[in-house]
Amino acid sequence: MSSREHWFPSHMREMGEAECLEALAAHEVGRVAYCDDGGAVVLPVNYTLDQDTILIRVAPHSGLARHLRGAQASFQIDDFDAYNQTGWSVLVRGEASYVDSGDLPAGQDPPFAWAEGQRTLHIRITPHEITGRRLIPA
Amino acid sequence: MSSREHWFPSHMREMGEAECLEALAAHEVGRVAYCDDGGAVVLPVNYTLDQDTILIRVAPHSGLARHLRGAQASFQIDDFDAYNQTGWSVLVRGEASYVDSGDLPAGQDPPFAWAEGQRTLHIRITPHEITGRRLIPA
Repeated sequence: MSSREHWFPSHMREMGEAECLEALAAHEVGRVAYCDDGGAVVLPVNYTLDQDTILIRVAPHSGLARHLRGAQASFQIDDFDAYNQTGWSVLVRGEASYVDSGDLPAGQDPPFAWAEGQRTLHIRITPHEITGRRLIPA
Repeated sequence: MSSREHWFPSHMREMGEAECLEALAAHEVGRVAYCDDGGAVVLPVNYTLDQDTILIRVAPHSGLARHLRGAQASFQIDDFDAYNQTGWSVLVRGEASYVDSGDLPAGQDPPFAWAEGQRTLHIRITPHEITGRRLIPA
């Protein structure tokens, strides 16, 4: 028995869509995921939530831009507490599409990218499924 | 201009494989990702690094078990510092396979799952590609 295994395991429970959207609204870094011939690619990005869709900003000639042109795309966020062995995660599955500048939300900051580079292309992930789960201390 | 945009953007640099493996060895929670008809699925899991492969433990009748039987699978870890707008991420792409109990590493704790449930099935992700990138303050 590992020294850690005397802890009681945490309970898993599903998060409702409203709770998932609340978590998405409260954060600014997540992971975009897409599939290519080699399987799943998962990359961190800055994002904003725009009316229940995910808005990210990428460089026009990047791999992300190439793979997220009218394609299936997923988006994931999570957070953990190693001491309490708890955490939560939200998974958004949907379709990615390029966004015309006229369709960007007015009066709201665009997703601000921490990384350098000309990230002039906006991509929207429109969910068809939002699920989440939360690990709660026993 | 957003109030945040006066920060200088961070520099992105590639991480070498040794640096990626060092990061993988130093953590215990990551995300396994696979593809199904709806695109990419990304789910947090506890893991251990076993001789440059990723070892996770799942419930035998779970969706993860069903999708990771001799299939392409990716694994991702990252960490961020929102104040400094820096961070790093590592992406492992490879093949998942079920592990016989005789093939588990001796003298090493199996991956300990925070969540409750009978996670009796071990799955190994054997990388064919390990990449990482780091955002460094300007």
